[in-house]
Amino acid sequence: MELLDRYFKVRKHTEAICSHLQTEDYVVQPVADVSPPKWHIGHTTWFFETFILKPYFMGYQEFDANYNFVFNSYYEAVGNRVIRTDRGNLSRPTVIDIYRYREYVDDAMTKFLGHAPSADVAELLVLGLNHEEQHQELLLTDIKYILGHNPLFPAYDASYKSPKANHSDAGFIRVDEGIYEIGFNGDSFCFDNELNRHKVYLNSYEISANLVTNAEYLEFINADGYHDFRHWHAEGWDWVKNSKVECPLYWHLIDGGWYAYTFHGLEALKLNDPVCHISYFEAYAYANWKGMRLPTEFEWEAASSKFEWGKAWEWTESSYLPYPGFAKALGAIGEYNGKFMVNQKVLRGASEATSPGHSRATYRNFFQTHLRWQFTGIRLAK
Amino acid sequence: MELLDRYFKVRKHTEAICSHLQTEDYVVQPVADVSPPKWHIGHTTWFFETFILKPYFMGYQEFDANYNFVFNSYYEAVGNRVIRTDRGNLSRPTVIDIYRYREYVDDAMTKFLGHAPSADVAELLVLGLNHEEQHQELLLTDIKYILGHNPLFPAYDASYKSPKANHSDAGFIRVDEGIYEIGFNGDSFCFDNELNRHKVYLNSYEISANLVTNAEYLEFINADGYHDFRHWHAEGWDWVKNSKVECPLYWHLIDGGWYAYTFHGLEALKLNDPVCHISYFEAYAYANWKGMRLPTEFEWEAASSKFEWGKAWEWTESSYLPYPGFAKALGAIGEYNGKFMVNQKVLRGASEATSPGHSRATYRNFFQTHLRWQFTGIRLAK
Amino acid sequence: MELLDRYFKVRKHTEAICSHLQTEDYVVQPVADVSPPKWHIGHTTWFFETFILKPYFMGYQEFDANYNFVFNSYYEAVGNRVIRTDRGNLSRPTVIDIYRYREYVDDAMTKFLGHAPSADVAELLVLGLNHEEQHQELLLTDIKYILGHNPLFPAYDASYKSPKANHSDAGFIRVDEGIYEIGFNGDSFCFDNELNRHKVYLNSYEISANLVTNAEYLEFINADGYHDFRHWHAEGWDWVKNSKVECPLYWHLIDGGWYAYTFHGLEALKLNDPVCHISYFEAYAYANWKGMRLPTEFEWEAASSKFEWGKAWEWTESSYLPYPGFAKALGAIGEYNGKFMVNQKVLRGASEATSPGHSRATYRNFFQTHLRWQFTGIRLAK
Amino acid sequence: MELLDRYFKVRKHTEAICSHLQTEDYVVQPVADVSPPKWHIGHTTWFFETFILKPYFMGYQEFDANYNFVFNSYYEAVGNRVIRTDRGNLSRPTVIDIYRYREYVDDAMTKFLGHAPSADVAELLVLGLNHEEQHQELLLTDIKYILGHNPLFPAYDASYKSPKANHSDAGFIRVDEGIYEIGFNGDSFCFDNELNRHKVYLNSYEISANLVTNAEYLEFINADGYHDFRHWHAEGWDWVKNSKVECPLYWHLIDGGWYAYTFHGLEALKLNDPVCHISYFEAYAYANWKGMRLPTEFEWEAASSKFEWGKAWEWTESSYLPYPGFAKALGAIGEYNGKFMVNQKVLRGASEATSPGHSRATYRNFFQTHLRWQFTGIRLAK
Repeated sequence: MELLDRYFKVRKHTEAICSHLQTEDYVVQPVADVSPPKWHIGHTTWFFETFILKPYFMGYQEFDANYNFVFNSYYEAVGNRVIRTDRGNLSRPTVIDIYRYREYVDDAMTKFLGHAPSADVAELLVLGLNHEEQHQELLLTDIKYILGHNPLFPAYDASYKSPKANHSDAGFIRVDEGIYEIGFNGDSFCFDNELNRHKVYLNSYEISANLVTNAEYLEFINADGYHDFRHWHAEGWDWVKNSKVECPLYWHLIDGGWYAYTFHGLEALKLNDPVCHISYFEAYAYANWKGMRLPTEFEWEAASSKFEWGKAWEWTESSYLPYPGFAKALGAIGEYNGKFMVNQKVLRGASEATSPGHSRATYRNFFQTHLRWQFTGIRLAK
Repeated sequence: MELLDRYFKVRKHTEAICSHLQTEDYVVQPVADVSPPKWHIGHTTWFFETFILKPYFMGYQEFDANYNFVFNSYYEAVGNRVIRTDRGNLSRPTVIDIYRYREYVDDAMTKFLGHAPSADVAELLVLGLNHEEQHQELLLTDIKYILGHNPLFPAYDASYKSPKANHSDAGFIRVDEGIYEIGFNGDSFCFDNELNRHKVYLNSYEISANLVTNAEYLEFINADGYHDFRHWHAEGWDWVKNSKVECPLYWHLIDGGWYAYTFHGLEALKLNDPVCHISYFEAYAYANWKGMRLPTEFEWEAASSKFEWGKAWEWTESSYLPYPGFAKALGAIGEYNGKFMVNQKVLRGASEATSPGHSRATYRNFFQTHLRWQFTGIRLAK
Repeated sequence: MELLDRYFKVRKHTEAICSHLQTEDYVVQPVADVSPPKWHIGHTTWFFETFILKPYFMGYQEFDANYNFVFNSYYEAVGNRVIRTDRGNLSRPTVIDIYRYREYVDDAMTKFLGHAPSADVAELLVLGLNHEEQHQELLLTDIKYILGHNPLFPAYDASYKSPKANHSDAGFIRVDEGIYEIGFNGDSFCFDNELNRHKVYLNSYEISANLVTNAEYLEFINADGYHDFRHWHAEGWDWVKNSKVECPLYWHLIDGGWYAYTFHGLEALKLNDPVCHISYFEAYAYANWKGMRLPTEFEWEAASSKFEWGKAWEWTESSYLPYPGFAKALGAIGEYNGKFMVNQKVLRGASEATSPGHSRATYRNFFQTHLRWQFTGIRLAK
Repeated sequence: MELLDRYFKVRKHTEAICSHLQTEDYVVQPVADVSPPKWHIGHTTWFFETFILKPYFMGYQEFDANYNFVFNSYYEAVGNRVIRTDRGNLSRPTVIDIYRYREYVDDAMTKFLGHAPSADVAELLVLGLNHEEQHQELLLTDIKYILGHNPLFPAYDASYKSPKANHSDAGFIRVDEGIYEIGFNGDSFCFDNELNRHKVYLNSYEISANLVTNAEYLEFINADGYHDFRHWHAEGWDWVKNSKVECPLYWHLIDGGWYAYTFHGLEALKLNDPVCHISYFEAYAYANWKGMRLPTEFEWEAASSKFEWGKAWEWTESSYLPYPGFAKALGAIGEYNGKFMVNQKVLRGASEATSPGHSRATYRNFFQTHLRWQFTGIRLAK
């Protein structure tokens, strides 16, 4: 059965990501944005239990009533929950308990999917799988934060293979003025925030074929870009000064040489790789310093077939707003996207941490302007 | 001379606004967003001294070198400054000192404008006058906050006349799909953020001919809208709960009846007036509860000739972003608008506190999503 | 009538202290510990109205019912009050309003004291006068903070005369081991915290005849005392690092020379004056660095007849705790001292800002360990 | 060899305490005051490595140079350290790594103690063992906090035996006025803060033979003691209101019945047990409400032979201050006690969590006034 196969493929991939962890790595939450890996393991399981098994699988016995409290992320409609900043305070349920929970739900899902589900449930299931794929990326970003902020700088996986950087000399791609169609159009899965497909009018513009590299970003640092207010938004300048930021996250200047924490541990900075782990504020300041700007998400999408993308999420100048005619789903699922559409910026593309098959040219990722723990980079426009 | 006449007209209007104040009212700063009136009096004067007299009036003697530190608002390029939250800690310079400073600069400007200024300087002067008109509105909003948060609820001006509310039954205005031109187009003054005039593609939409009234907003309160997470953005919901907001700013429920602080003191709520002093979060939640939405700034501008506006600034769904081809001015003046183009929402229209002649259909006002001390209201779209 | 004479003498002295202020100086509150001078003027008046006129003067008409809310300091038993940090946000009542209130209460007190009051009321009156004398000292300390933190460094009173520093070469005074009697003993006024007189056993000790001077304290600064954790309490070290303290309050290092803000404005540091405006943490660290310690309040009192004191309050090693048999008064007056007897240190002596006739060898002043805006100095013991 | 035997006895006891934990329980730090158990395991080991093996055992090879950074608690003299609030963010070193470290140091200590150490080193060793016994108690208090704040309320050890409560009817013990000797006097180990033995003069007083019970404390709750400002210090009242405290830590009111989290999990409150896990503020308020007071540490010690103590630490009215002639040890060991002697209260006695043989009538424990996670109770005096 195809759905069940896909279900297990996704579920096993989550577990494969965690296979390099020590038990202790599953538990900690160094900052509010990062969740403990064991929480992700439980939360993705809770999603299937809450939205599929409990409402649709007659006779299903909840694994543990307390788990709703522990593993609800932000769904106000599904009851109280552990506040986000407290996730790292919970030693129980243990990692083993949570894997048992996972197995229990997987078993029930196997039984449940023995009969072909209704279209509605199939839709929920596909949403749940896409949801889990999103958490697979969060697992990698959170694990990188947990290990990369440990004073021992342990490797995550010595055999981890970074994608190859394809740095071309293609320069800038010119796009003509006119009306473009934006948004998802097709039969396969997309998130509600990619709908509806609609027209936008774009002035002519140029967009870079390449992401900004570490070498290029170092020029900004060496030109004292972090200490010159003229390149920054007022709010970005406050952020730089209050956070004492001097370089991308995970970079370290050691005895005059630049190093970066990677999944292999601390390594000499690779100059030709795309710069990564920068905030929107930094992306904007860099572009400003270059006398250019970031593309809007519409410019990005309209040109996306003309360049390679996928090693780092790309900050756009666009705020995360609803497309014309956007409508939330009913019930708890309706909290998925719409309620975050304020004071966040859209990122386009995908990153090396994005799960296989989870990227689309119409995909709208979004984060707050000061965050850096995601794999985020810069493409210039002018 | 026309420029000089206009200069004095604007300058005297600022002083007229303050004519109802006691000396003590000029001094306090109850929250960071509000500035003490004496600071506005000094800062608008400092603007002319710093950007016109010092660079362009040969032989001009600065009034007091310390005043640059005291009255610089946010221009990083013009040196250090008193941090914003400390403005209300300064008892000196006194109100009289600052009026002397004002007179001194006005005298110098009179002399300076005896000869027709160059086009560049005339442009700066007009910017300075528009800048002072903006501070005239801020003076009124800040004075309202200062007096409206005093436990004695003193009136600002018993003879103050609110504009009449023109509540029509015009219902919704329908606008057709297509390309519209947005942005300022003309020879007179506009701010840099209104340029360039450019095309946008709009889907068809409907926009209300009226602002939402106090009576209509009370229905939202009575329907428990402030306690139902479903209407709110996640960030708005956090704001409502943490700030314990239950109604618009200045509203008070006394013995079962609703009152509002106005420039006349505490008065029974006027049900047909537009609701005012609400945050973007509240505007969004109200629209959501009604099953509608806020217009974008483009929808607003494209339809603006078809409805009356001007008693309250209108929150739009649009984030404050640069128009295509936006370019900052060189030097300190370049800090005027561009550096605030992140994490703010555009307001369109004007309010009863806006100075005469200071409004345009292309005017882009902007504030953060949680702020309420401005005269801000709601127009619905669908 | 003696009581009435004394009443007016005290009341006029308060007004004399304020006679050097501009209206604006009365209004501001740069930090929570400092109150606006107009608040002191109102609060000392409120004390007589609340505790004497309202309960004991038949037919007395309260001046304004709102003033209880505005001018109550910390008496929970007397109703709600403006929270301390908001005092500087109130532009109304104006300074003139408050002086009218003062006059109104003084008139009523004159009438009321036309007949000799009962012993109970006379006792309350004397408490009220001592209370006002305490606020006279607070007025001076708060005014110094307000003007001394203004970037213009205005003088308070050019003709202000600092007491002469009597620096003797008397060295250390030796006191023998044994039982000493501590606490107030007499018929005149004292605060409840000075009672009961009781025995303490003291080991032999030596106490300095002089306060530590600015010159001596400079040696500590020059020896890098502010950057060596070994001299500090753990909590003091956190305070030094977080507050970035490098010298006493009001000291400024300008072009290599030390200056201090005084009631005359900014002046070159007087090396032979006692060091002043230091926290307990600094007093302790200095003593520690010298290989000595601060005296306990018992050691101080037992030796107090053998040295001069009175230009700066002297930090002691003693925590502010009740004497054996301490009992709070009934009602609101009982909140005067007892409820502050935790996490504060006792200061002994008096300062140049203490009102004439308000000092005693048994007087127990008290502040938190990080505060510096009082006139506080150091006497060493070993 | 006696010292080595004792060394292993203490070290094994620490491990026995942790034998009931899951790996995850070792890792978390729900609040700054609580340390992760694995940190205690490492820190007590680091103490022997740092203060004994590295300086005194020739040829000793440090286990891992990074561990000094990870396991230093507060010794400024021994280099940088992980800030306290970050201890719970460290997944590495793992629990197994730390037990290996422990074994490595124990092996080295075995070799080192093969030859009788010098008197100086023996003294350090005994200090290290007493230090570890203190951390044994902290382990129990921290484990109780970690499990007791988990929404699943897991038991620590189902077979844990609480000491029996010996509630007698002995009433109050009267002690006569006079000179008493206070402080440690003997040849065995004591901490530096118990020295020097010295005379104090005490007024006559009465001290209760029993600790206040849960039943008695419930009367205070039922009399609305948590909502009546008159019983509280001003700072305590702020704490109660800001922290929304309504009962002792670990108490829960469920369907009208009182429960408490214990090492067995959630249990019905035992009314005859001493009240436990209350702050100094609560102890003071309770005594005040009873019309009594807390004893001073001197009153406690002078009477300590006349009552039973040891199930809960007893808050005293005494601030934690140096005894006459107190002198810090040289070097890092000197940071052990002296630098905490400000803004803390002395607790006397011992608790059920105190390690066997670790209690003395002269022992001075100390905590800040708002803390409750220790086993802290109330003995009344009058």
